[in-house]
Amino acid sequence: MKKLFVPGFSFSSVTADVRGKGEDRPDMGLIYCHGLSAAAGIFTTNSMAAPPVRLCRERLASGGVRAVLVNSGNANAMTGKEGYEDAVALCRSVAELLDVPAESVLFCSTGVIGERLPVHRMEEALPRLTGNLSDRGAGLFSEAILTTDTCTKIAGKQTEVSKGTAGLLGIAKGAGMIAPKMATMLAFIMTDANIEPDTMGTMLREVNQETFGAITIDGDTSTNDTVLFISSGAGPAVRDEQDIQAISTALKNVCLDLAEQIVSDGEGTTRVVQVQVGGAVDDDQAQSAARAVAESLLVKTAFAAADPNWGRIAAAVGYSGAETSSDALSLSIGDVQVLAGGRLVDGYNESLAAEQMSQKRYTIGISLGNGPGSASILTTDLTEEYVRINCEYRS
Amino acid sequence: MKKLFVPGFSFSSVTADVRGKGEDRPDMGLIYCHGLSAAAGIFTTNSMAAPPVRLCRERLASGGVRAVLVNSGNANAMTGKEGYEDAVALCRSVAELLDVPAESVLFCSTGVIGERLPVHRMEEALPRLTGNLSDRGAGLFSEAILTTDTCTKIAGKQTEVSKGTAGLLGIAKGAGMIAPKMATMLAFIMTDANIEPDTMGTMLREVNQETFGAITIDGDTSTNDTVLFISSGAGPAVRDEQDIQAISTALKNVCLDLAEQIVSDGEGTTRVVQVQVGGAVDDDQAQSAARAVAESLLVKTAFAAADPNWGRIAAAVGYSGAETSSDALSLSIGDVQVLAGGRLVDGYNESLAAEQMSQKRYTIGISLGNGPGSASILTTDLTEEYVRINCEYRS
Repeated sequence: MKKLFVPGFSFSSVTADVRGKGEDRPDMGLIYCHGLSAAAGIFTTNSMAAPPVRLCRERLASGGVRAVLVNSGNANAMTGKEGYEDAVALCRSVAELLDVPAESVLFCSTGVIGERLPVHRMEEALPRLTGNLSDRGAGLFSEAILTTDTCTKIAGKQTEVSKGTAGLLGIAKGAGMIAPKMATMLAFIMTDANIEPDTMGTMLREVNQETFGAITIDGDTSTNDTVLFISSGAGPAVRDEQDIQAISTALKNVCLDLAEQIVSDGEGTTRVVQVQVGGAVDDDQAQSAARAVAESLLVKTAFAAADPNWGRIAAAVGYSGAETSSDALSLSIGDVQVLAGGRLVDGYNESLAAEQMSQKRYTIGISLGNGPGSASILTTDLTEEYVRINCEYRS
Repeated sequence: MKKLFVPGFSFSSVTADVRGKGEDRPDMGLIYCHGLSAAAGIFTTNSMAAPPVRLCRERLASGGVRAVLVNSGNANAMTGKEGYEDAVALCRSVAELLDVPAESVLFCSTGVIGERLPVHRMEEALPRLTGNLSDRGAGLFSEAILTTDTCTKIAGKQTEVSKGTAGLLGIAKGAGMIAPKMATMLAFIMTDANIEPDTMGTMLREVNQETFGAITIDGDTSTNDTVLFISSGAGPAVRDEQDIQAISTALKNVCLDLAEQIVSDGEGTTRVVQVQVGGAVDDDQAQSAARAVAESLLVKTAFAAADPNWGRIAAAVGYSGAETSSDALSLSIGDVQVLAGGRLVDGYNESLAAEQMSQKRYTIGISLGNGPGSASILTTDLTEEYVRINCEYRS
């Protein structure tokens, strides 16, 4: 069983009926830090970034964190000045109930764009939310932040550092609107390791690139994407390079685990495919090629059908802008080599390739035959179910 | 009724069973030029460009055209040196049957990637193909080049120039793999106007940008996209600026008509949406914003559901990279103004917007509030049917 506990943090959830449809599911969550906690964040690059994203950015720049309020069902995006004031007001109410400085409360929202938050209903729910706090409440919190997710996403990791054992706990939500440009979902990683805020920021940026930054479901980058890394400081101090490396590795494991859970739970997803590109002129070109394949609708529908239609993959590499040629391309599907130097390998057996593609998780290996650059992106298949969900759900 | 005739050209089609599945549908077509004809072409930018594309590029660079052979069912892409030799051999056979120079025969292919052409079966069909030629055969030719298209795409236009009346006839195929980066389908535009080859090239490049270059169905750019503009020279000479302008306008009308037919017949498409962006810093940024909206899966599924989920549109603009802000964005759906200066307009009525979106064709108007740049892209909705088709069909 996952360890849902990190010293210095409590959690809670409440049903506030954010969407106003009388649904009986928790839709507000709270992370409470027992003392002033150091934090770092990564946010959407979308220029329509929602007011709560702006609020988090400002408050992280000015000091520590005592609480993070989260709601699902409404993104508070494209709501202008009023949306920002709604967020400020709700944070102020949380601060009063918890008796902490108003500026130490962060706020994340996910859900429909373009509607004002039902501030009154949410205010009414706050005393229950702050009254429910428990240091074993992470499971409840993880449910309250979901939208079209079909399951909670939690990952934990303990790691030894020179001054003792540090714990990390990660909780995320994902589902739709996942793209590699940014973290593109909500993720909260809590640790008791006592780390300098600047170090946390550097760590998080590095880890993000290889984890949340390397997944895609539909290529859309949302207005509300947020990754927060919060340290209660209740555990061992982490100052020297070796300890920092240990925490960084643990953080990467947690984020990778969450990223994989997010992709696996992508809307309508039946398969997870790792697109690995090597032999590119540089890493950027490898990234372009991997992204083109990972986001091609024709490739993703072929994934859904477990159809080894490698021509669609080659075509996507071809329009990606990465330097290559049809004579240089090598391609494998799972363990089955398909192309070498642009030619079908002798004895290529299509039904063996189809067998690889019928697995729930496999790797497409691509070499551009051009240099040392490499990149990897985790993607999904595209099913009729994805379309059905996104026609019906108002995100 | 459309005029399916241009002086100087004959057409034919034949059933060659290119896919080897015994299908009883025409899958090879031929355009025959009665004399050596000037021509210009635009080809895919995909670095995996198929052998027939390479052949066309080389032959257009070196001289005029006497025939264009086309097959559907097999793209002859990712087939290497052998694929190129297959194309050369088939052109040679056509040239012998028609008694024209081998280098004056062009060849376009569309269909599955990564399989060799069934040269033997195709050779066998050639005498019937060259024997069937008729100057009224354009309709038959237009059927032979289709793949998952549900209907033929033909557009004609007559235009007055100083020396008489010139005719243009355009024939295209589209359906899947349509993207704005390139023409991304096969299109043939024949005219009897006598134009200099260089002038034809300039004309075609200009017109292409605003027509075939401004449509998208699934964002994929194929390996075989080709647009050919061929002049028999049998009609009036076009030399002065005013006449060139008249032909250019007629060419644009024909290409626009074909582009619209292609999008309307996009795989699984139920609606065609024009995404018009203004107020961008420059045209390139407008183009980026329009493309992000036109290719967003979340936006396209909202189109399918006729759901005025303008938040998804705003989010796509936000991650497009075009400079704007949530305070500057204006948005309309058909005749219904939704946002002005980033705010919902007073009296915005969602059901009126939904009514606009239930039409088969409408315009999304977007202003970034930032400058004089503008762009327009024609796109489609994304339906479960698109996914079904692309899971089942091997393209």
